[in-house]
Amino acid sequence: MEVKNMLFMSKGNGENSFFQNCSFTQKVVAMSKPALEKVVESLFSECFLPYQVLNVADLGCSSGRTTFLVMETVIESVKRKCRELNYQIPGFQFYLNDLPGNDFNTLFKGLSNFTEKYNDLPCFVMGCPGSFHGRLFPKSSMHLVHSSYGAHWLSKVPRLMDKEGLPLNKGKVYISKTSPAAVKEEYLAQFQEDFSLFLKSRSHEMIREGRVILIINGRLSEDPTNGEPWEPLAEAIADMVSLEVIPEEKLDSFNVPYYIPSEKEVKNIVDREGSFELEVLETFPIEMGDKSVWSSDEKFIKNLRSFTESMVSHHFGEEILDKLYDKFAQIVLQDLATRTEPSEVISFVVVLRRL
Amino acid sequence: MEVKNMLFMSKGNGENSFFQNCSFTQKVVAMSKPALEKVVESLFSECFLPYQVLNVADLGCSSGRTTFLVMETVIESVKRKCRELNYQIPGFQFYLNDLPGNDFNTLFKGLSNFTEKYNDLPCFVMGCPGSFHGRLFPKSSMHLVHSSYGAHWLSKVPRLMDKEGLPLNKGKVYISKTSPAAVKEEYLAQFQEDFSLFLKSRSHEMIREGRVILIINGRLSEDPTNGEPWEPLAEAIADMVSLEVIPEEKLDSFNVPYYIPSEKEVKNIVDREGSFELEVLETFPIEMGDKSVWSSDEKFIKNLRSFTESMVSHHFGEEILDKLYDKFAQIVLQDLATRTEPSEVISFVVVLRRL
Repeated sequence: MEVKNMLFMSKGNGENSFFQNCSFTQKVVAMSKPALEKVVESLFSECFLPYQVLNVADLGCSSGRTTFLVMETVIESVKRKCRELNYQIPGFQFYLNDLPGNDFNTLFKGLSNFTEKYNDLPCFVMGCPGSFHGRLFPKSSMHLVHSSYGAHWLSKVPRLMDKEGLPLNKGKVYISKTSPAAVKEEYLAQFQEDFSLFLKSRSHEMIREGRVILIINGRLSEDPTNGEPWEPLAEAIADMVSLEVIPEEKLDSFNVPYYIPSEKEVKNIVDREGSFELEVLETFPIEMGDKSVWSSDEKFIKNLRSFTESMVSHHFGEEILDKLYDKFAQIVLQDLATRTEPSEVISFVVVLRRL
Repeated sequence: MEVKNMLFMSKGNGENSFFQNCSFTQKVVAMSKPALEKVVESLFSECFLPYQVLNVADLGCSSGRTTFLVMETVIESVKRKCRELNYQIPGFQFYLNDLPGNDFNTLFKGLSNFTEKYNDLPCFVMGCPGSFHGRLFPKSSMHLVHSSYGAHWLSKVPRLMDKEGLPLNKGKVYISKTSPAAVKEEYLAQFQEDFSLFLKSRSHEMIREGRVILIINGRLSEDPTNGEPWEPLAEAIADMVSLEVIPEEKLDSFNVPYYIPSEKEVKNIVDREGSFELEVLETFPIEMGDKSVWSSDEKFIKNLRSFTESMVSHHFGEEILDKLYDKFAQIVLQDLATRTEPSEVISFVVVLRRL
């Protein structure tokens, strides 16, 4: 089964839902707000404006909250800039994209506060179900594309088998210290393919001088074997294998469709694809386990669960989830408590200008 | 609570869902297919074509099936016409609209067959949550608007109280033979207001010469007191009142946000609003209870339940639903069995040209 059919943030608005557990992505979006404001500023300083309608896409919007902050930031920045330049405020058309399995019902119900707040503006909000690894919008229709914590997801798990069809990444679910070199290569190759396709698709959809702003997981070191939270997830599953709750082959055939790139890797792909100029690549020193984000350890763990659960459940079945995530919580919290150095896994803000 | 927050077709794809019980609206759409094909033909015979992208909206799309037929008809008609005229086939952007409480998750999941079938075309599908009694799209952006069995829903229940605040429509839920004249007047006034607002909103959103095609419930006679399936619904609720399952005041304060207009009423509103020319107003001799639509009586009743249940449940509570719909089924089927004349309640196909 393809990733697009089994990956989604936990649904609804109950206590385990992504909707209730997105403090981390909200923090990330708050941190990237100045960058988004700057992008809107530069759009409005260039020749192709003023628009009648500003078309904005948020790719991988999940079921809400974060995407509302993004829309608010765009509108407020545009209003400010228009006042400054004495332009008329344009209309807004927001396209909220995620995979078809996303909980759009919760997203749309959450919209009412937003639309009430801006009911004096011609502001239209659409949902756009589909994979951002392909085309989503008509040619030359988008002015601004935002994506927070989306583009590090892969369209599929790389094929991690040797010539005999035996698993290459035994006992692990992502690139680990013990993974053979081929695992690193396959992961990087898949990210190169997917991220290039992401850029190529956007290049068709955007007008010249349009901007893409991406916030993605990234790593500081060139060594890719520091994959939080995947290393502790592998450990938790391995523990379930040792307890004979999960068969070993099940673990060996499970790998996550996710890649944490380095700055250099991102730059190389953008250069090679050729449709965009890299305007900004900045790092945020934000860690998933950051104490300032979470009101409690429990909240932190619930967040990790809300974005990993759909694929874990799809591969291992629902019945093991509670036990597995208890073990996972234990490992993650112990790691955090004993950590002496800051994490190598941080976030990148990437701004691209359509050439 | 406003209608937009409590009206939706039954969710999911289980046996009581609208998705599984939309044979009637499918039949209606199949019957109106030649009219839709003709509308596409006329769009393509006029000066503002060929387009790069044809923007098409389906208003009140609910959770699927019917809307897929509409999209297919549009695409196939455009392809045929383009071959004939030696035009390049344009891209398609479909906007599927319904109230925010609609089950968009089921709609988007059902899309995969459609998008696979047309993956050789630049064809993009968006969901658009909102009320069609207001603006949904940017100015002058739509070429074709379709709405099947949507525009007879009202934005709110008319205020059916006398000066003392006592209920005007005691024991009934729609205009009935025993309803006082004020009930008819209030219902018509609400329809005039809502349908005018529908037209005014579309007039802003559509380009000149764009077309609206509506399929709505309509009545043959000028007498509005023949409201199927509302008369039997009132009877079923009254039966529950006599059994003391439902308090009488609850029935007296319940009326449906729905209006079945006559041909003359529709024409008058279009003329008075003034943005559109009425190109077509045809009647379909199709009745809800039509034997050719339903594989069984049970299916017929499930359909009636799937589009009435959300508002009944909102007013009377969930616990009475099964009992109420058993009684409703009994009354409806008995009415059908003893009916000697064809129903006065049929369907209209209305085609409007934006002036």
